[in-house]
Amino acid sequence: MIRTPTQKGVLEAAEKIAAILPPTPLLPVEIGGTQCWVKAENLQPIGAFKIRGGWHRLSAMTEDERARGVVAVSSGNHAQGVAWAARRLGIKATIVMPRDAPEVKLANTRGLGAEVVLYERPGEDRDEVAAKLIAEQGGTLVHAFGDPWVIEGQGSAGIEITAQLGEQPSRLVACCGGGGLAAGLGLACPDTAIHVVEPLGWDMVGQALSAGAIVSAAADAPKTICDALQPTATKPINLELLHGRAEPGVTVTDDEVRHAQRWAFANLRMVIEPGGAAALAAALAGKVPLDSRTVILLTGGNADPAAFAATIAQGN
Amino acid sequence: MIRTPTQKGVLEAAEKIAAILPPTPLLPVEIGGTQCWVKAENLQPIGAFKIRGGWHRLSAMTEDERARGVVAVSSGNHAQGVAWAARRLGIKATIVMPRDAPEVKLANTRGLGAEVVLYERPGEDRDEVAAKLIAEQGGTLVHAFGDPWVIEGQGSAGIEITAQLGEQPSRLVACCGGGGLAAGLGLACPDTAIHVVEPLGWDMVGQALSAGAIVSAAADAPKTICDALQPTATKPINLELLHGRAEPGVTVTDDEVRHAQRWAFANLRMVIEPGGAAALAAALAGKVPLDSRTVILLTGGNADPAAFAATIAQGN
Repeated sequence: MIRTPTQKGVLEAAEKIAAILPPTPLLPVEIGGTQCWVKAENLQPIGAFKIRGGWHRLSAMTEDERARGVVAVSSGNHAQGVAWAARRLGIKATIVMPRDAPEVKLANTRGLGAEVVLYERPGEDRDEVAAKLIAEQGGTLVHAFGDPWVIEGQGSAGIEITAQLGEQPSRLVACCGGGGLAAGLGLACPDTAIHVVEPLGWDMVGQALSAGAIVSAAADAPKTICDALQPTATKPINLELLHGRAEPGVTVTDDEVRHAQRWAFANLRMVIEPGGAAALAAALAGKVPLDSRTVILLTGGNADPAAFAATIAQGN
Repeated sequence: MIRTPTQKGVLEAAEKIAAILPPTPLLPVEIGGTQCWVKAENLQPIGAFKIRGGWHRLSAMTEDERARGVVAVSSGNHAQGVAWAARRLGIKATIVMPRDAPEVKLANTRGLGAEVVLYERPGEDRDEVAAKLIAEQGGTLVHAFGDPWVIEGQGSAGIEITAQLGEQPSRLVACCGGGGLAAGLGLACPDTAIHVVEPLGWDMVGQALSAGAIVSAAADAPKTICDALQPTATKPINLELLHGRAEPGVTVTDDEVRHAQRWAFANLRMVIEPGGAAALAAALAGKVPLDSRTVILLTGGNADPAAFAATIAQGN
């Protein structure tokens, strides 16, 4: 079944999600003297916005599809989103996760009742692992970002923001992995500038936006602490929605991300994981324009305790 | 001017506060298999509920009173609440704080434009330091918990909770220092059981509830990490409102508090300071009854980074 993501679909997703989840807080913040907003998706029950796409996708499945189960590939937050929705709907979920995923994400995903299949991040192709699983045991693939339902589901955050703000935001600044959230936000808020923020060397969406074509991560791409933002490439469905729609991509360094985590700890009293802090890091570094209708998405809070402690203890 | 705190006063406070601050989130949590709620007062702009009492008190002052300034005594959160309100209203604020207050609270209070006067926690009587300041320079004392306006202001959290829940909660579980919040909550929610949670050895409200009379902290009271919950005694106005109204007091240990901070980090993705985690600690330790209409208040999030890092890194 081919589905084209639409604003109507995003509105449907927003309605379905509002029926089971309270809106996450939209909180005022001051950055460099400018009053703007953060959307605290790290306060979702699974600690990330990925619960949106997971719920919109799985709840739209037929009884037959549900009976065959779902397979997803994720470094951890999409894993929890799919597992959460699957448990609620009584669907068997198998999640392909990298062996080096944060322990907290592996534990949470298993805690939600999903079966976790590990793969080696460099070396094995995670999509091939998933395809093999589906060939063997059946089930529906729920792609982390290249899926029309998932894109619509993530976009529901933009509908919530618009309702909370009373109007469409001027700019949405979003952490970006494969581009599922950004594509959904673009549909949700047609009048809003969309800024994607990616880790240095992992800007597969930013590069694709410039090139107008899909670009794959370099074999020697630098390490990043943003475990949630390391796709090997975006997908055609995401590029099609974002090309000519999103602003030029922005990248952030690990140091900028750690500074943002410390800033959120001290000023927002919230826990943000590295990948969830990328958009805030760009804002704090002056890499995106800010105004009173700009909303920065804090996309996830599933931080490894030891790494978070080290970041916080480090001082500014 | 003598004012008797009333439910009407709490409702007025709630209205005044709603006009300038969005409600803090009421979030569902599951504790020991029971679904209940947390009220995230740590997400207030100053990181604590104390902004409520500070605003209700200072905004009710006459022009003459405002011109003479305010003096407060606080280990740090009331300090920030008063300083925040004073800055907004153009009032000079002088805050008496213990020399061993967390650096983050001293810095935040100064950052809000207040003048900080330090005293030695054991040895000097902080109320005497404040009285001397007022005798010398004038101004109105804004007591941290023994003030009718402050009590009404803090109670506004109960009005917000009732609106968010759609009915009065069955139980409110509140971290307790001198009893200002608990007294206000009792007025706000007349049908609700009020549970006060204090650090072991610093249960000056719990002991006063049992004795029916004010009890002072022992000279050899044990150390506690809950810097915000160390009053030398409650005040008559608080005891009068709470005696026969609140449930018997509950105490928690430092280890229980640290466990609650870690639990909130991992499950709520929020930063709670030790004193702000006492109520959650009691709930997690099974020391208070829980049900689907129980609300646990997370009262503050101004955690010292090094101490928080050590707690988080410690593992469960």
